[in-house]
Amino acid sequence: MEQRLSLITLGVEDVARSRAFYEALGWEGQSPDGDVVFFQAGGMVVALWDRGKLAADSGVDDAGGSGGFTLAYNTRSPEEVDSVIEEARAAGARITREPGKAFWGGYTAAFTDPDGHPWEIAHNPSWTITDDGRTLLGS
Amino acid sequence: MEQRLSLITLGVEDVARSRAFYEALGWEGQSPDGDVVFFQAGGMVVALWDRGKLAADSGVDDAGGSGGFTLAYNTRSPEEVDSVIEEARAAGARITREPGKAFWGGYTAAFTDPDGHPWEIAHNPSWTITDDGRTLLGS
Repeated sequence: MEQRLSLITLGVEDVARSRAFYEALGWEGQSPDGDVVFFQAGGMVVALWDRGKLAADSGVDDAGGSGGFTLAYNTRSPEEVDSVIEEARAAGARITREPGKAFWGGYTAAFTDPDGHPWEIAHNPSWTITDDGRTLLGS
Repeated sequence: MEQRLSLITLGVEDVARSRAFYEALGWEGQSPDGDVVFFQAGGMVVALWDRGKLAADSGVDDAGGSGGFTLAYNTRSPEEVDSVIEEARAAGARITREPGKAFWGGYTAAFTDPDGHPWEIAHNPSWTITDDGRTLLGS
């Protein structure tokens, strides 16, 4: 198994509502079948699909609520954390942590999407964001 | 907000156990602080961290169990689905769906990791895996 991830699918209550949320953040999705929505996110894909269908397809029992994962978007500057959080607030996100310094030296904030899925928005001065948007460990 | 994802952190019960599971699949992690483990996964990062700390840091209440997301690893051939599933089985994964043809034309299977986080292993003939491991919508 190569050390890479192809896709993360978020289980959502209302695909159209979630698609509108991510498109309000500036993303652009496509839905080949009118059921699942795909966003090409750098070298991988983020998908939105009905949460019940996803759990059944994955062979798991879904406990509901937030379930043990957090997505992160790393910015190119501390100021970009502030601007992304304002975009998210305007799009209807719940800001669960306002921007501030992290104990590990970065500058971060967090929000949840319409289904309560958490995102951290972080500037990590020890990591590298390449011109083409890859996030690399180390500076 | 650029259309990309930097990091997904999986909340786990026992970081060492989970690290050993992913390393048994052939991945190699690093832990700068002895607390969180990072895997460079193509152009993004997969992290393992204590599930309670992650929920607190993200400002969410964690309902426990599986929570509305599935990771996916797309292979370069149908045969590679079978071989990855055998690697996962040998590493102690629970196979939640044995390999078979999907309704959308691919060949897929699914397993859960030691914390019940689901992965789909999929060959999708309509998508492209580049030589450097990026997954692109379209052929």
